Amino acid sequence: MELTTLFYWIDHLGVAVFAISGTLLAFRKNMDGFGVIVLATVTAIGGGTTRDLILDMPVFWVYDPNYLYTVALAALITILWLRYKAYIHQKTLLLADAVGIGFFTVMGALKALEAGFSPLICIIMGTMTACFGGMLRDVLARDIPMVLKGELYATACLIGGTVFVFLAPYSQLLAILVGGITTVLLRLGALRWQWSLIVFHEHHDGHR
Amino acid sequence: MELTTLFYWIDHLGVAVFAISGTLLAFRKNMDGFGVIVLATVTAIGGGTTRDLILDMPVFWVYDPNYLYTVALAALITILWLRYKAYIHQKTLLLADAVGIGFFTVMGALKALEAGFSPLICIIMGTMTACFGGMLRDVLARDIPMVLKGELYATACLIGGTVFVFLAPYSQLLAILVGGITTVLLRLGALRWQWSLIVFHEHHDGHR
Amino acid sequence: MELTTLFYWIDHLGVAVFAISGTLLAFRKNMDGFGVIVLATVTAIGGGTTRDLILDMPVFWVYDPNYLYTVALAALITILWLRYKAYIHQKTLLLADAVGIGFFTVMGALKALEAGFSPLICIIMGTMTACFGGMLRDVLARDIPMVLKGELYATACLIGGTVFVFLAPYSQLLAILVGGITTVLLRLGALRWQWSLIVFHEHHDGHR
Repeated sequence: MELTTLFYWIDHLGVAVFAISGTLLAFRKNMDGFGVIVLATVTAIGGGTTRDLILDMPVFWVYDPNYLYTVALAALITILWLRYKAYIHQKTLLLADAVGIGFFTVMGALKALEAGFSPLICIIMGTMTACFGGMLRDVLARDIPMVLKGELYATACLIGGTVFVFLAPYSQLLAILVGGITTVLLRLGALRWQWSLIVFHEHHDGHR
Repeated sequence: MELTTLFYWIDHLGVAVFAISGTLLAFRKNMDGFGVIVLATVTAIGGGTTRDLILDMPVFWVYDPNYLYTVALAALITILWLRYKAYIHQKTLLLADAVGIGFFTVMGALKALEAGFSPLICIIMGTMTACFGGMLRDVLARDIPMVLKGELYATACLIGGTVFVFLAPYSQLLAILVGGITTVLLRLGALRWQWSLIVFHEHHDGHR
Repeated sequence: MELTTLFYWIDHLGVAVFAISGTLLAFRKNMDGFGVIVLATVTAIGGGTTRDLILDMPVFWVYDPNYLYTVALAALITILWLRYKAYIHQKTLLLADAVGIGFFTVMGALKALEAGFSPLICIIMGTMTACFGGMLRDVLARDIPMVLKGELYATACLIGGTVFVFLAPYSQLLAILVGGITTVLLRLGALRWQWSLIVFHEHHDGHR
């Protein structure tokens, strides 16, 4: 299998994982079938759409409808599974989201790299691809955006994207594997051991 | 009157109806004059702007300020009418919104069709044009987005857009009429008889 | 110093002021270090990014990473200052926001003017550059968007932008100074003396 084909499938896997995370949140919010498909779609393609708009490239799903079929299929399977299981752990949603940002960080950075943008912009674009879909998901579902919460999130993408950019000149495949896994592990570690960056003193609460 | 002239007026009618719906929501939220114009504008041009950005076409109101005058005029008339009536039924807002998504679904799909995009993308673009303005309106006004609620909404647009795409090769005028009316009737029927698509079991509430 | 160099610095000043306002809101919302940088960045570059997308121009920070460094630096200094001070007045946040919309109104209008757009579009673009970053900030932080509240906000930008457009043919520097100061003073005056535009009767509250 050629690398570009492999990368294409990894990209679809990222879209599927985020579609699942959107469906899971819709389930937790007791939404009905019509809301589910909107939330799954926005979560899955929102980040990449924003990236393509900002880089002034053709929006990826407009010229390749397979991405939309992936969203629909992933949402459908998740719905059927939820009908059978009838509950989800909060952890499942967080895990799907963590795997999603791992995939999207490296694939977003790769797309910018192949278009010839500077390393800094590649890292930013990876982070934006990873974070914007979930941010739209949380804003629409009226949750506190995960990206703004205490634990490492966007920063995990920034670090994973930096790893990718450093390794990419040697081997794109290696860069994608190591960069993606770095992002996922940093995020999961942050959730497990509550890694957080306290930048403000605690005692300011009374002054708000 | 030529068809393009007629379509131009239908497009303005859609913009006006969404400007009204934004103004009505601003009224229900007790906003003042300055917030009203922002909410009316975002609701009226948000969907078409998103469509034009994603299709990489010139944003419709940038090169034709008439759309902005339509927004201002529709908002102004609504404000004057509300000063006189001093209350609105929730139904009025839902009706304005339903008519708006009918207009915007077909006009959004038509614009994509004329630019040569595939039928699937035309349907998606119709739905996006119809749903995004109202979605931004609800997010800004901190309401639960109508598009995520239980009753048929985005799905009404998807069905109406599909009708449009099937009829368009025979007669654009017929396609616009039947596609638009299908969307409005599906949405109003869903509100009247509470058509909804239960995809999840009820008993998962305890596990959230 | 040439005018373009001066304008470049004024633009960076606007970005810095909005990065500060995003950081201050993150502080008031008790966010941690990772959320702060996201909120500061979105606030600082959200408005100009939206403007560039709609005008179909290259997004300003993609080809000039200095803007991102300005955001990081402004956020860092604000964090350090907040660690020392440990509280902020609500007024400080409102003041930073007011100065930010002043800068961004004129710089947004100037960019549209230099690209040859009509005066109306220049005014709208100035207002959009000024208002969208703060709007995204408030939506993400789940605050009521300032732009929708009672006091003069978007309207201050519209008026300041109009002043800029009228003076620009005579002297760009004068237009930027007077237009920017007009915006800031209108906004501060509105906050100080509660200038608001009551467009609806009071007694509709019971009918919501």
